[in-house]
Amino acid sequence: MFITLEGIEGSGKSTQARLLADRLRAAGRIPHLTREPGGTPLAGAIRALLLRPDDAMEALVSAGLASPETPVDHMLPVTEALLLSAGRAQHVARIREWLAAGEVVICDRFADSTRAYQGAARGLDDATLTTLEALATGGLRPDHTLLFDLPVTAGLARRRGATDGEWNRLDAEQTAFHERVRAGYLALAAAEPQRWVILDATVPADQLAERVWAAVSGWM
Amino acid sequence: MFITLEGIEGSGKSTQARLLADRLRAAGRIPHLTREPGGTPLAGAIRALLLRPDDAMEALVSAGLASPETPVDHMLPVTEALLLSAGRAQHVARIREWLAAGEVVICDRFADSTRAYQGAARGLDDATLTTLEALATGGLRPDHTLLFDLPVTAGLARRRGATDGEWNRLDAEQTAFHERVRAGYLALAAAEPQRWVILDATVPADQLAERVWAAVSGWM
Repeated sequence: MFITLEGIEGSGKSTQARLLADRLRAAGRIPHLTREPGGTPLAGAIRALLLRPDDAMEALVSAGLASPETPVDHMLPVTEALLLSAGRAQHVARIREWLAAGEVVICDRFADSTRAYQGAARGLDDATLTTLEALATGGLRPDHTLLFDLPVTAGLARRRGATDGEWNRLDAEQTAFHERVRAGYLALAAAEPQRWVILDATVPADQLAERVWAAVSGWM
Repeated sequence: MFITLEGIEGSGKSTQARLLADRLRAAGRIPHLTREPGGTPLAGAIRALLLRPDDAMEALVSAGLASPETPVDHMLPVTEALLLSAGRAQHVARIREWLAAGEVVICDRFADSTRAYQGAARGLDDATLTTLEALATGGLRPDHTLLFDLPVTAGLARRRGATDGEWNRLDAEQTAFHERVRAGYLALAAAEPQRWVILDATVPADQLAERVWAAVSGWM
């Protein structure tokens, strides 16, 4: 079973992904917790470029692997989509192995994030995103997707309060950008209601975890 | 004017690109010498991932930007094509600026390299490569392309003799791989003879430079 968790920044999905993995383990299943961008070493390196291009560039320059021109050029939306797809292609190869081994794969963000962020929010067209998704996933789709929905202001307030140092290039976008992401997710969920479950992510974490488990245990 | 130089490893095109830039400068033109993968800071960081993924990963892990899982997963052909396209999208934005400023852009490898390496040699289909090329270039095509053609054994012998430390992941491919690259280039040149000039790259560098200049001065 392949379950993906989606939502805007600060929706609490990473915490819920961990809690869900614990609960699956307690229920005797083998959860495999992973995330995008990332999920493999190479995809992790691509993640670094996506979220902190200046820092990644500096690290590569120090290692003598890239030339020391600075600052890094502004990342174009199409470049972002191509890098995400490159990492996804590597990740999907692994996800297929985990699924074949009978594991329950829980993925914090997947292809729907690209639809919401690069499509709805950045304006890349559907045809381009469909092509890239097919190239990267080879047709692998989540069995179920949980959407952690909450107002943008609430999500961003949580992220700014977080102390894990993960504030990144995408967090820094304007509120209007995150509003488009949220609307994009809601449209995706409305278009494919059999795959998506929309959860109110404003409730306390323990209560949210119960709702996640109600959904997941139902699927099993 | 946008001129690209293509050829297998060890064909001498990087040397010829520099000599051509010198000659253009002497003729009063403003040459802009660039290369792929690379050509911008961000594209240079992507280049590092493409050519030395293990080293790039190590640099990012040292900088605390990626998690220390090793070794790096084997790069899939589609990932390679997506990363190349990501870097190309960034590069094309700059190339358009240089061309708009009236510079003669000389690019050591461009989209035809992806056709030859990821298409002819790695087996990615034409439709995929056409889509990625359109996404990355937005339709920008070279006015002229010089193909530095020579037998694979001669090219690889030159590369192995080079002392610039640039021996990379692609050089390490089997001879049969580079034979497919060479055949791919010759097929591209045959399909579009008005854009391509095929040069015999086995002749000495100074003689080759004369032939390059004969072609380029003809176009101007």
